Amino acid sequence: MSALGFPTVGVVGGGQLARMMAPPAVGLGVRLLVLAAEQSDSAVAVAESRPGGHEDVAALLDLAAASDVVTFDHEHVPQPALEQMLLAGAVLRPSPSALLHAQDKLQMRRALTDLGLPVPTWAAVSDVVELRRFAADNGGRAVLKTPRGGYDGKGVLILDGPDGPGDSSRAWATAQGWFDAAGGSPLLAEEVVPFVRELAVLVARSPSGQVALWPVAQTLQVDGVCREVVAPAPGLDEDLAGVAATTAATVAGALDVTGVMAVEGFEVAVPGGTPRFVVNELAMRPHNSGHWTIDGSVTSQFEQHLRAVLDLPLGEVRARAPWTVMVNVLGGDHPDLYRAYLHVMARDPGVKVHLYGKSVRPGRKVGHVTVHGNDLDSLLERARHAADYICGTITE
Amino acid sequence: MSALGFPTVGVVGGGQLARMMAPPAVGLGVRLLVLAAEQSDSAVAVAESRPGGHEDVAALLDLAAASDVVTFDHEHVPQPALEQMLLAGAVLRPSPSALLHAQDKLQMRRALTDLGLPVPTWAAVSDVVELRRFAADNGGRAVLKTPRGGYDGKGVLILDGPDGPGDSSRAWATAQGWFDAAGGSPLLAEEVVPFVRELAVLVARSPSGQVALWPVAQTLQVDGVCREVVAPAPGLDEDLAGVAATTAATVAGALDVTGVMAVEGFEVAVPGGTPRFVVNELAMRPHNSGHWTIDGSVTSQFEQHLRAVLDLPLGEVRARAPWTVMVNVLGGDHPDLYRAYLHVMARDPGVKVHLYGKSVRPGRKVGHVTVHGNDLDSLLERARHAADYICGTITE
Repeated sequence: MSALGFPTVGVVGGGQLARMMAPPAVGLGVRLLVLAAEQSDSAVAVAESRPGGHEDVAALLDLAAASDVVTFDHEHVPQPALEQMLLAGAVLRPSPSALLHAQDKLQMRRALTDLGLPVPTWAAVSDVVELRRFAADNGGRAVLKTPRGGYDGKGVLILDGPDGPGDSSRAWATAQGWFDAAGGSPLLAEEVVPFVRELAVLVARSPSGQVALWPVAQTLQVDGVCREVVAPAPGLDEDLAGVAATTAATVAGALDVTGVMAVEGFEVAVPGGTPRFVVNELAMRPHNSGHWTIDGSVTSQFEQHLRAVLDLPLGEVRARAPWTVMVNVLGGDHPDLYRAYLHVMARDPGVKVHLYGKSVRPGRKVGHVTVHGNDLDSLLERARHAADYICGTITE
Repeated sequence: MSALGFPTVGVVGGGQLARMMAPPAVGLGVRLLVLAAEQSDSAVAVAESRPGGHEDVAALLDLAAASDVVTFDHEHVPQPALEQMLLAGAVLRPSPSALLHAQDKLQMRRALTDLGLPVPTWAAVSDVVELRRFAADNGGRAVLKTPRGGYDGKGVLILDGPDGPGDSSRAWATAQGWFDAAGGSPLLAEEVVPFVRELAVLVARSPSGQVALWPVAQTLQVDGVCREVVAPAPGLDEDLAGVAATTAATVAGALDVTGVMAVEGFEVAVPGGTPRFVVNELAMRPHNSGHWTIDGSVTSQFEQHLRAVLDLPLGEVRARAPWTVMVNVLGGDHPDLYRAYLHVMARDPGVKVHLYGKSVRPGRKVGHVTVHGNDLDSLLERARHAADYICGTITE
């Protein structure tokens, strides 16, 4: 316990997710203690931190010893290290056994299939013959993924037919590196889901089993990177919304998830029927698809994550406006974000700018902007303009 | 400048106002650097800080040298120290000449009177004879205030008639200590304003002259301490709202205020006419009457204060709900706030709890709670219950 009987939450990883836990920790009176690999990590400037990487077992054990609860900025802590933390008495939320499903896509696909939940057709493949057979069974197309370590479109290949740019032989040549790096463990092959759009369901679950589900959001990925989120998802079929919410709650309960989890999925049209929800990915932590909740919900995903991992009662997750739009700010050509955001604030006093304190590199997520209100078209225009201006994609 | 071209805001004083600047500084990417007298000060746990009191000139100069702009958690830095900071090249916002009006109530009364703004009838008094004469001219009643250093009802005496508990001789006996402490400078005598209720106008002004005014709020003081704020003020006469807003904007402009200023005032009934607005106090910093803006407005007073002192464009100040109610949490008999707030969160998922990381002492402001929504009566009940429960005034 820290001073005054309030707990300390240790966070492994110093990225923007750890950073955005800092503001709600202030109001909750909770102490944050971040294990950060680099002094330049996003969270270091705004929270108490210690130096150490996420594979440094001694640092992890020190963090655990100084914390009442340990949670995560990302899913990359190796299972053996997590097991050592448990043996040393650490309280890990989510638990290693839950986290495994966010670390290993094959494990996740197996678990969801066992639960009877809707996932793409998939197979574990260990060589190009198996990959070719899977693609042949699925209309000549497939998505090939490394089960571990992929993010933001990295570790994903699309095979779009035997003569296309991503044919199975060439795909496997690229994937051989993943295969070797994983010690010869199988890769994940999946059908190319013919989706109408992508959706994300954000759920929080506490160790006591309390569950809270924010409104389902619509997400837009460009080159595998989240670009834009609209909450709630416009025109979402009510039955589909119910199925998506139930699916997320089922996953959270069955896998004994604690903290916030994002379930990313696809909306698939069904001629003459209710559209289907198909689960794509799980993230067991606050997630880019939930950044809209900072300004758009009564309780943000970051406050809720702290409440959930501490087994505090969960907060209300109602949307505060008819529409909230979040657009990511990706690094562009000019490094001076301060000048750019000054201009954005002058143009639009209603835009909320959230910067991550990261230096600009092309394509790097360096912040996001949020707007909320009644007119979705206008909100989309405002949020995109603000993000594009800060990125430097546009200059007026 | 701190890293990445973003500025550093130095804050003199480590109380809860400095603490609550930390969350918006995260999103803005701005570095906060707090000068805190004690390690146990509210802001120290959540922001970068340096040790030093607000009268320690060397520490003040060090803070200024490390900051692009210096602002304040309170108004107690002596003018000579401020002048030395200016001479050393510090950028002080608000400026010492503006701040003087929040430091010295006589100075403030003179300035507002010169501007033709509505203030209580007042006089500078230097002995009991002058005090008695003022009271006699004002129906036998008066408020006696020390011009400097009073807060939360301290430094204020009510004279309610020659035979009442606060008659002029006894009042002066108490006030003699203030008089002596002020080196024989006059005290401030004022009429007892027959107010209907108290109002607060929160205004932000930037060095460029941009001004933003939040909706006028209703405040309730108990024993001179802010207890409850409702925004917007229920049933407020539109003309009165306009006068109050214009008054605050006029004060901000005429005194060249930069940052957030709270203008506390009285609503006084006028038979058959528009009620009057009479200015009581000025606070040149974020203020208790504006805590509702954290959850209740598009831009909180803390974010706006940072934007204003940095001369960034100001944010939208629209209320986000029909009603927002803020109730202060004052220290009570039991010190374990964590247990109490757990209970409050369980009872009401919509209440937002803001704790200041301060140890509990009876009557000390240790936090506040906010609720927002459509039904004012229900909101008042919910906010009061939550605050009372955390205080320990009620146990169920």
